[in-house]
Amino acid sequence: MNGAEILIKTALNAGIEVCFTNPGTTELPLVAAFDSIPGIRPVLGLFEGCCTGAADGYGRMADKPAMTLLHLGPGLAYGIANLHNARRAHTPVFNVIGEHATWHRPVDPPLAMDVEELADTVSGWQCSSASVASLSRDTADAIAAAQKGQVATLIVPNDSQWSQVFDETIFQPAISPADIDKDTIALAAKCLKQKQNSAIILGGRALRRRSLLAAARIQSATGCDLLSETSPARMDRGIGFPLIKRIPYFPAKATGLLSQYQAVVLVGTREPVVFFGYQGGKSKLLTEDQQITPIKAGQPFLPEALESLADALEAPIRLNSKTRDSESLQRPDLPEGRLDATKACIVLAALQPENAVIVDESITSGGAYYVLAAKAPPFSWLTLTGGAIGQGMPCAVGAAIACPDRPVINLQADGSAMYCVQALWMQARESLNITTLICANRRYEILKLELARAGNASPGPMAQSLYDLAAPTLDWVRLSRGMGVPAVSVDTAEELAKELKAALNEPGPHLIEMII
Amino acid sequence: MNGAEILIKTALNAGIEVCFTNPGTTELPLVAAFDSIPGIRPVLGLFEGCCTGAADGYGRMADKPAMTLLHLGPGLAYGIANLHNARRAHTPVFNVIGEHATWHRPVDPPLAMDVEELADTVSGWQCSSASVASLSRDTADAIAAAQKGQVATLIVPNDSQWSQVFDETIFQPAISPADIDKDTIALAAKCLKQKQNSAIILGGRALRRRSLLAAARIQSATGCDLLSETSPARMDRGIGFPLIKRIPYFPAKATGLLSQYQAVVLVGTREPVVFFGYQGGKSKLLTEDQQITPIKAGQPFLPEALESLADALEAPIRLNSKTRDSESLQRPDLPEGRLDATKACIVLAALQPENAVIVDESITSGGAYYVLAAKAPPFSWLTLTGGAIGQGMPCAVGAAIACPDRPVINLQADGSAMYCVQALWMQARESLNITTLICANRRYEILKLELARAGNASPGPMAQSLYDLAAPTLDWVRLSRGMGVPAVSVDTAEELAKELKAALNEPGPHLIEMII
Repeated sequence: MNGAEILIKTALNAGIEVCFTNPGTTELPLVAAFDSIPGIRPVLGLFEGCCTGAADGYGRMADKPAMTLLHLGPGLAYGIANLHNARRAHTPVFNVIGEHATWHRPVDPPLAMDVEELADTVSGWQCSSASVASLSRDTADAIAAAQKGQVATLIVPNDSQWSQVFDETIFQPAISPADIDKDTIALAAKCLKQKQNSAIILGGRALRRRSLLAAARIQSATGCDLLSETSPARMDRGIGFPLIKRIPYFPAKATGLLSQYQAVVLVGTREPVVFFGYQGGKSKLLTEDQQITPIKAGQPFLPEALESLADALEAPIRLNSKTRDSESLQRPDLPEGRLDATKACIVLAALQPENAVIVDESITSGGAYYVLAAKAPPFSWLTLTGGAIGQGMPCAVGAAIACPDRPVINLQADGSAMYCVQALWMQARESLNITTLICANRRYEILKLELARAGNASPGPMAQSLYDLAAPTLDWVRLSRGMGVPAVSVDTAEELAKELKAALNEPGPHLIEMII
Repeated sequence: MNGAEILIKTALNAGIEVCFTNPGTTELPLVAAFDSIPGIRPVLGLFEGCCTGAADGYGRMADKPAMTLLHLGPGLAYGIANLHNARRAHTPVFNVIGEHATWHRPVDPPLAMDVEELADTVSGWQCSSASVASLSRDTADAIAAAQKGQVATLIVPNDSQWSQVFDETIFQPAISPADIDKDTIALAAKCLKQKQNSAIILGGRALRRRSLLAAARIQSATGCDLLSETSPARMDRGIGFPLIKRIPYFPAKATGLLSQYQAVVLVGTREPVVFFGYQGGKSKLLTEDQQITPIKAGQPFLPEALESLADALEAPIRLNSKTRDSESLQRPDLPEGRLDATKACIVLAALQPENAVIVDESITSGGAYYVLAAKAPPFSWLTLTGGAIGQGMPCAVGAAIACPDRPVINLQADGSAMYCVQALWMQARESLNITTLICANRRYEILKLELARAGNASPGPMAQSLYDLAAPTLDWVRLSRGMGVPAVSVDTAEELAKELKAALNEPGPHLIEMII
């Protein structure tokens, strides 16, 4: 057994099932090990941004890490942006980078970069494996670190991969002890009992099913509001789940919502802040008058922390169905006529099937969707956590591989879609059940809006050229078919409804360009 | 005048003509400044890898920097891989990153990354602008640093951009004094006179026209061979230029060429090393028995350094035309029948017009091209310097913008092409005279070759799946047309010749998919 094989065997033994990769010469022993130690499914991406974005989507749905395998500095470099999104999503990722042989590094060959420095920008944990002797332990440590909800990077020199292993002991990832600060739970309970107008802001894994059912108990016992961070990694939603108010993106609206609370409890998220610091604006959305109580618990232990809080509040375990706002299905009526962004959202909310995974990188176009889908059948909703655009398409790939029995729908802005457009090829290659809805407004609408907000409502021709995507028009049908994904273009609500139904009824990926 | 405007004014005054960008909210004052201080042409890329790759191509052809404007950490992250290539090419790049307002950074908003750490992986010079008061000076310093042949990164917080300037003094980039170590020139002259079998290895700007004419004088005076690093940033080639032997990629062939020399002089390049450290192999291509004399000179001063060396050797300034190997045009005959990689190279070498810029990211498919084009009409040949694949298409964009009167031909591997495929849209948008020749072998052939070299001639199905791009087949005609670039597919040599002639005779971009 060589180093590559003991790495793969350790990962397989720890429950790793899939590896998103675009390998090169410094990863060849690992490439060969996928055959000699079978069990991990390697999935090829045509660009590392697609690999890391897929690993993010997978981890959000599976709550366990996928492996990546990236080609030294350049491969990691292309993958950094979506690893940043994964970092902000607290996604477990076992991020493996092949590196030059240790003895070859000193000559600084053409592909050499400072891989450690590069990886450090996104990794919660990282290790450059020192020798083949420690490779199983390093692998187990990396996976244990990833499972805490972070990007764990293992850099493996080529000579460690090809060297023979003398001790074939397979290490197991250490099981993390429950990482919950009970004092902060007691404080939160006290605060929620005392304050009239209180809210819990939920983030990370506090927005998954089990957490939300506990949150509903807390709400029922205290009358607090339940809020979500603006861009959650994954929120389980729809009927049966409590209604969650999403903190708006723009500061004035966010402050409008948040200012009504005397007390705010934070679970799985930080104190809410503005995305961008505007001239004359502020960074924080809460004021010093508001009592802020963060519950301290590791991401995997958030459901347990919320259940402890519910118990501390003596909230009944079974809720009376009348107390649940969103018990009964409530779908919008299908709209008619010329499509626009709002109608597109209505069609989606009206037709999305039970158990759908909605990967929402719609940026401005999807503004209406959140509220419209509140009483849809149960579904999971994934958003762009770190603002590195282009995450939607590969995220859908990872989600579909993690959940092959759930339909995945990617509500996707056109400008952002172009960043990792190669993910369509992965969708075709792996025959994934993904329907991509392209919001073809043919501009970076957010940039136009932000320019107007900054007082530049009539930008000059140069500025206009930087948000206008209309010349030439991107032809999404050709792009999609060019990568093997069947595609159509629609410009009425009726056509969209018809094509969305058809896409959802047929296996494999589909793309619908929505001219809005 | 605000900070953004003084930055743009300083850059314009320093000769910056173009900015490759995909801006966001933290760059809005700079976006507006393209209109209020007109003169710099902003060119939108749909992905930052295209912006930085274009800046690389521009700098290689213009020998002066383009500006980039990237959206804080995530935008820089997507651009890092091609900045790595630019770093290895010694390309001047004025790399501007918008950053959060200084007062907003401490709350670590969602898009925040450690931009300085990220930029440090590729920058030869970098500065986080401390305040608007120093912004003109910082800009001038960055441009001066870039002009030395490196990526110079200027990180500009949003508040520095929007703040008003009190002192409107525009700083000029300092002119670098000639950075040539005359002692090393004397040593090189002595070495070339003494040793029978000697060679000069040329790299960086030592492969541009003026350098090469000096190198021809040296060759004529000493009989030395002229060699090139394996992956030059830009080599001016064809009739009128001396014949340059390119150091082969694989170690055995490289050693075969290099072992014949008793002495080697290095100009604009480092001691040649193997790309990858193979099991049982070595890093260096030269041995301790061989005398190595590096000429120490900054990249912009390499032509002068070579002329000094020629003068030191008393080489005549005008060469007798008989001493020039490559004086007379010698084109291969057009091939016939089913296309293959070699025939594709022959067609290109037979038809490429005078003054063409050949951007060659053909990886394995273009193996035959280098020798075939030796006696073509004068042209420039640009290659992948840092091994971060995907550089070809955006490099062609930058080259075409730097040299609007020269036809640009991109000989492009299909797998690599998918990395920055969005560059086709830039080609259409800017109506650039670029003909892209896609080498559609539908696999990562280099990975297959390297697996075989590593003793894995019959890889298992998992390994095979990681170099096979055939399922589904990429349809380059659809992809290209989807981004507004007219395209055809050919599978015979005759069709290729016909379509290449047609593409070169018509303005604007074209793509030819070559099924090989």
